[in-house]
Amino acid sequence: MLLKLDGTGPAYLQVYRAIRTEILNGTLSRGMRLPSTRSIATDLSVARNTILQAFDQLLAEGYVTAHVGAGTFVADELPDLMETLHPAASRPASGDQTAFGLSAYGQRAQMWDSPLKLRPRPLPYDFRQGHTDIQNFPFEIWRKLLTRRARSSNAHSFVYSTPEGGIDLRRAIADYVRRSRGVRCHEDQVLVVNGSQQAFDLIARALLDPGDVVVMEDPGYLGAREAFRAAGARFVAASVDSDGLTLDTLPPLANRARLVYVTPSHQFPTGAIMPLARRLALLAWAKSTGCYIVEDDYDSEFRFDGRPVEAVQALDRSGLVIYLGTLSKTLFPGLRLGYLIVPEPLVAPLRAIKFLADRHTSTLQQDALTDFITEGHFERHLRRARKLNGARREAMMRSLRTHLGDRVEICGANAGLHMLVWLRDHAEAELPSIMARAAAAGVGIYPVTPYYFEPPRQAGLLLGYAALDPAAIEEGIARFAKTLNARKTA
Amino acid sequence: MLLKLDGTGPAYLQVYRAIRTEILNGTLSRGMRLPSTRSIATDLSVARNTILQAFDQLLAEGYVTAHVGAGTFVADELPDLMETLHPAASRPASGDQTAFGLSAYGQRAQMWDSPLKLRPRPLPYDFRQGHTDIQNFPFEIWRKLLTRRARSSNAHSFVYSTPEGGIDLRRAIADYVRRSRGVRCHEDQVLVVNGSQQAFDLIARALLDPGDVVVMEDPGYLGAREAFRAAGARFVAASVDSDGLTLDTLPPLANRARLVYVTPSHQFPTGAIMPLARRLALLAWAKSTGCYIVEDDYDSEFRFDGRPVEAVQALDRSGLVIYLGTLSKTLFPGLRLGYLIVPEPLVAPLRAIKFLADRHTSTLQQDALTDFITEGHFERHLRRARKLNGARREAMMRSLRTHLGDRVEICGANAGLHMLVWLRDHAEAELPSIMARAAAAGVGIYPVTPYYFEPPRQAGLLLGYAALDPAAIEEGIARFAKTLNARKTA
Repeated sequence: MLLKLDGTGPAYLQVYRAIRTEILNGTLSRGMRLPSTRSIATDLSVARNTILQAFDQLLAEGYVTAHVGAGTFVADELPDLMETLHPAASRPASGDQTAFGLSAYGQRAQMWDSPLKLRPRPLPYDFRQGHTDIQNFPFEIWRKLLTRRARSSNAHSFVYSTPEGGIDLRRAIADYVRRSRGVRCHEDQVLVVNGSQQAFDLIARALLDPGDVVVMEDPGYLGAREAFRAAGARFVAASVDSDGLTLDTLPPLANRARLVYVTPSHQFPTGAIMPLARRLALLAWAKSTGCYIVEDDYDSEFRFDGRPVEAVQALDRSGLVIYLGTLSKTLFPGLRLGYLIVPEPLVAPLRAIKFLADRHTSTLQQDALTDFITEGHFERHLRRARKLNGARREAMMRSLRTHLGDRVEICGANAGLHMLVWLRDHAEAELPSIMARAAAAGVGIYPVTPYYFEPPRQAGLLLGYAALDPAAIEEGIARFAKTLNARKTA
Repeated sequence: MLLKLDGTGPAYLQVYRAIRTEILNGTLSRGMRLPSTRSIATDLSVARNTILQAFDQLLAEGYVTAHVGAGTFVADELPDLMETLHPAASRPASGDQTAFGLSAYGQRAQMWDSPLKLRPRPLPYDFRQGHTDIQNFPFEIWRKLLTRRARSSNAHSFVYSTPEGGIDLRRAIADYVRRSRGVRCHEDQVLVVNGSQQAFDLIARALLDPGDVVVMEDPGYLGAREAFRAAGARFVAASVDSDGLTLDTLPPLANRARLVYVTPSHQFPTGAIMPLARRLALLAWAKSTGCYIVEDDYDSEFRFDGRPVEAVQALDRSGLVIYLGTLSKTLFPGLRLGYLIVPEPLVAPLRAIKFLADRHTSTLQQDALTDFITEGHFERHLRRARKLNGARREAMMRSLRTHLGDRVEICGANAGLHMLVWLRDHAEAELPSIMARAAAAGVGIYPVTPYYFEPPRQAGLLLGYAALDPAAIEEGIARFAKTLNARKTA
């Protein structure tokens, strides 16, 4: 095996990428035993510890498996973590392999290399952010609503619909966001989309030309960042403090911004809640700059402490805010349903772009969702889900305090379905081995690193808890704490 | 009422657009009586006949209603036809009204002005192409499959999936297109998309930069053309003869083509079937030109006469063909499910673009479709649908012959679910009044004009028949023939 290092970034990541490439190429085929760390270290003239770190990361991501006493083997099934530790670093070096070349967009888009790869066998204690509580979703009701609509007498649910979504669903959504979030809108400003990812994409297409400046929270949500990056955005990283996105440290380039992306209700991933004064400052800044605010209200339904703050959209008097919500957190992610609330002049262009993108969102599920909302099931389910998630969040806090105490710092736990946990005694570079040891104990933990433009120094974990019951949370955190305390074995 | 004409195109269309704008603005509000044609003609100093023609078109599209002896009134409910007669002419003249401007893509996209507007009350005899036979779809089975998957024990149907679609569905699709269409592919080349519109969009994004040359059939499918146009395509119109797209009359610009869009199994809308020799010539031309072939196999499941010809993809040895199929014709359009079969080097870029576009297609319906195919329901339904559609097609042919005889020329009836009907005695410019009279008799007929780059001289109708039973077809064509024979009343 002849490994080629690409000379970019930390040595262990270079080795990791080189081995991963051989695995993905098939040079190292499934089930094959890897050479010893010692022999690779000698071949490459690097420290053996570097190879060990690379193996740890391959192990954590599921590319290899370790058998005590027998060595390290290429995994039988390869799909790996959703978030690789350094997505930018893991992009294909090879570039365009197509017969006649890709468009500029296609070339940028294909750099997105880690689209939701799931573990072949889920870990028993998996704290992946974005997983939701499928077990407690009222499927009997959902099935009833689906089957009621899925009759030939309800032809409406099967024929072509309008690109902006069905009028009944748009009314139900407008009514819901007005009541629950203070959003000021008419149903004509609602656009039904296939989850928030399509919302980012439609916005990028409507508003961004290559080279346009986008202000992103740093750290911030990858799905939005990647959609804007593929559109050719030039990013300005806005730092985030305990009140969310900060304006006063923005560089001069920010004055040319076309968009600012912000998660004011529960900053992703830090969980900061933006206070009213800063919301008003953000609106004033956007107005003077001439840029739209993309307000991603992805999990505002779940709030455990403190008074809810109304949406930035609710304060907007100038039509600058594009508000988006998703049903992925409240119903389930596989549904692929979300909504945009857009300023009136953007309605027609976004409707046209939605038509060109996929004509309209699937009708039957729109209709079932309409009934789910208008017949009161949605808010009943939300009340129940809030209680369940509140108990899970309590279990997280309690377990982390009990098993890790002062060794962790918890951020953003007062709302949403995830928390950011800093490991005070560990550097970011230790994460691959920390994750690998946790995975070996059946615990899935995830780094916050990919959400940063520049990796933080401290080891930070993004832990979602909505899919685990309190007992599993307690056991998972206890196991994780044990692996964190155990000495590293090589 | 002060009408402003925009000075573009035929005078009657200028008047039509001006009145339509006033209706859409609300200056002419719902239920309001329009001024007399005579007074408008005087105001604008144009012939009264021009105003009558404009009124006819407004009537045909459902913007106004006529009450004998009482005059013409703005309709109570406004949404109109899917295809306006001249979509390009009806584009907003006003341009960008947004606060901070649209992207270049957004500006091009918003020109698409007629995204599926449906009649408020469907006509009893509606020959709209694209409508399918909802009444005979096996909904009991579809409901059973949906509810079987929609249980919390089947968590798979609710969590995030992979951007390319579920592996079981991709296997089922690969197997189906291999058997039924001779398509040569591995399941990894299958990409599940939200109907063929998303397929066009993903292809455009992967391959087209603004200014890139695309060869389009003329006439050709609007959904594809508009997706390519919005991407900034420069079109070369390829004329269509009885064997489909012609290569020998292409202008030199075609040698710079990046894409050629083609519907070889049943040319849309003429219905021409491309013979083998021309398929091979197309492949050779594309290879020497260095351009991809987008093969849209939208209705190959329905073939009534002659031997089926295998897909162009089946003949491709160079990885030039991007093949696409849809479930809109065989299941129902509101489902929004289709598939791409792509050359291997395009798999990764298209998967990345699909992720960025909307992460993945809704899981539950993918799973229900998987079961529908693998348990044999799909091919059973197809056999039944072929028979039913064959009978409907016979009813069309018989009725047209009986009631219109030599006055019509029928094209493309040997396959698919629509036919192109030329009215030998009528010019294209007569279509608005012909459509208006048919609509007044409860018959929806649709012009072929929008599918042409330049309107044809003769009046051509695109008539779909899949949604009407034979008795309704007979009655609808009989009524239409009567209105065609009747003298025009003003």
